[in-house]
Amino acid sequence: MGLDLFSDVAELTAEIVDIESVSGAEKPLSDAIEAALRPLPHLTVERDGDSVIARTSLGRAERVVIAGHVDTVPVNDNLPSRVDGDRLYGCGTTDMKSGVAVALRLAATLPEPGRDVTYVFYECEEVEADRNGLKRLAETRPELLHGDFAVLMEPTYAEIEGGCQGTMRVEVTARGERAHSARAWMGSNAIHTAGRILDVLRGYEPARPVVDGLEYHEGLNAVFVRGGVAGNVIPDECVVTVNHRFAPDKSLAQAEAYLRELFAGFEVTVVDAAPAARPGLTHPAAAAFVSAIGGTPRAKLGWTDVSRFAELGVPAVNYGPGDPPLSHTRDEYVEIPLIHDCEARMRMWLC
Amino acid sequence: MGLDLFSDVAELTAEIVDIESVSGAEKPLSDAIEAALRPLPHLTVERDGDSVIARTSLGRAERVVIAGHVDTVPVNDNLPSRVDGDRLYGCGTTDMKSGVAVALRLAATLPEPGRDVTYVFYECEEVEADRNGLKRLAETRPELLHGDFAVLMEPTYAEIEGGCQGTMRVEVTARGERAHSARAWMGSNAIHTAGRILDVLRGYEPARPVVDGLEYHEGLNAVFVRGGVAGNVIPDECVVTVNHRFAPDKSLAQAEAYLRELFAGFEVTVVDAAPAARPGLTHPAAAAFVSAIGGTPRAKLGWTDVSRFAELGVPAVNYGPGDPPLSHTRDEYVEIPLIHDCEARMRMWLC
Repeated sequence: MGLDLFSDVAELTAEIVDIESVSGAEKPLSDAIEAALRPLPHLTVERDGDSVIARTSLGRAERVVIAGHVDTVPVNDNLPSRVDGDRLYGCGTTDMKSGVAVALRLAATLPEPGRDVTYVFYECEEVEADRNGLKRLAETRPELLHGDFAVLMEPTYAEIEGGCQGTMRVEVTARGERAHSARAWMGSNAIHTAGRILDVLRGYEPARPVVDGLEYHEGLNAVFVRGGVAGNVIPDECVVTVNHRFAPDKSLAQAEAYLRELFAGFEVTVVDAAPAARPGLTHPAAAAFVSAIGGTPRAKLGWTDVSRFAELGVPAVNYGPGDPPLSHTRDEYVEIPLIHDCEARMRMWLC
Repeated sequence: MGLDLFSDVAELTAEIVDIESVSGAEKPLSDAIEAALRPLPHLTVERDGDSVIARTSLGRAERVVIAGHVDTVPVNDNLPSRVDGDRLYGCGTTDMKSGVAVALRLAATLPEPGRDVTYVFYECEEVEADRNGLKRLAETRPELLHGDFAVLMEPTYAEIEGGCQGTMRVEVTARGERAHSARAWMGSNAIHTAGRILDVLRGYEPARPVVDGLEYHEGLNAVFVRGGVAGNVIPDECVVTVNHRFAPDKSLAQAEAYLRELFAGFEVTVVDAAPAARPGLTHPAAAAFVSAIGGTPRAKLGWTDVSRFAELGVPAVNYGPGDPPLSHTRDEYVEIPLIHDCEARMRMWLC
């Protein structure tokens, strides 16, 4: 049984939520998407890794890009999906398979849109940037992503969100000296020393800068910690992986300098980073979308791949039916009426 | 080339240090020990797992047990062994292959000791108690360990050390709530919460109780820490493995109660424990050994398998050429003159 792109968008969302696609294991879902799009005569479909790109080529004056990632964070006892009243629960419902379902519906049911459209379904957004499918496409096949404007269907609760915060992951390493744990005073316990790293994190007060009229909300969190040699050895190393989210008034270099100062005295190694993107809503193509969809744009707090479009010179916004705070939670759900609403507004804009 | 048990005891120590035997991978060394002992006509040799037991059966009035473990902690850039002046450097030199070499020399060169002797070379002392070879023998073949007195050749810097501290490992778990790391305030960071566990460890002041006239020195240390779900998820669990070393005035139950009170508010799970042993030097068999070897007995701070002999009703002491504080360190070494001294005194006692 393949995907039915002509079914209701909420049913389609449930269908693709139930095809598990944790980062790195998207193949079954990408295969299903490719198989569903290939037969449509108005689309040119390409496969690149586990990303699928489908394009209309009607010679329209404008081309827009509609993009979404197909992977999810690890399943947390929240599959298969289930409907409860107006809510569809399950891993990836909000982030961002409901947005992917809207894009798939538009791709299948709009053979002659008023603007040429490039639909991009890509892999590995939820893990380190080096595996990101959109990053790879931007580097190896940038012509596929070109357009006058891009909409990334990340969860925004069906409102337009401009820009995105940057993200940087650093490993902060505490060092010590090994010794037998029966004579701990002969060594120096790196895990205990790492307590000072956690002190910094526990004392952190998030900044909330306003950029181009939108208010952001920064963050500083341990996302991993590891240390230990053997059950009777004082450990000589403890590594805390810290994720910093920063507003688009800061460059990557400024974010790194901030972290190095905050953790002075410890080794700090940048393992992963992606720049912030300024809201950019003053661009004419962005303004046209805002006026078609309606509502008041907000700041995007999460990092999203709008930043990759910004780097290619393509203005881009986030817009999708999911509710951002529910992303990555065990009780993740999406409001079914918002999926319908989102599809209807996008359809009006593209007709 | 097999082991030469008739070579100098320091050379023999270097030979067995250079046969790497990290816990769980003792087989090559145990094979070499078994192969070297089998041809000796005055010994009955048995193999049990990677433990080797060799016994004289001369019908003497007393039987003594001389025991040592053949495994080491993970190699830390400190193999092969090397001699520098009077020191032999390398993983396991102090803990406790120099003691094992002394026992092997005695086994090979004393065909008619004044007391019957059981030599025990066993595996997996440096890891969780459930894998310990002496523990297995005590449970499955206790008759092999029976005797009037036992000497465990753990590092004591060639002085007699009575009793041993107990050891308990607990997992202390901090819980939180997952959320996207761009909206950390929607969740609760378990790694940050684990900072309170580290606060307890950093504030700990070691007790130094005196038991049967010997002073002990307790300890409380993190030996492992782990936590994290994905690079952009606020983690909902962080586990700190804590190793508590306690003096022989406390039972296992008292040690556990102490830890549960110390980490009240967190989940505490005992993963590994071994009781302390009181010094027991007033036992006649122990006193005889003390008078033969000389010196003033001290408290043993590390946990050792004397506790297993104590549970079988066999009085036991620690006595070996290694220097305890050097155990498990990268710069581990043994003083060569002490290996010779230790062999000479043991030989005098057994003749």
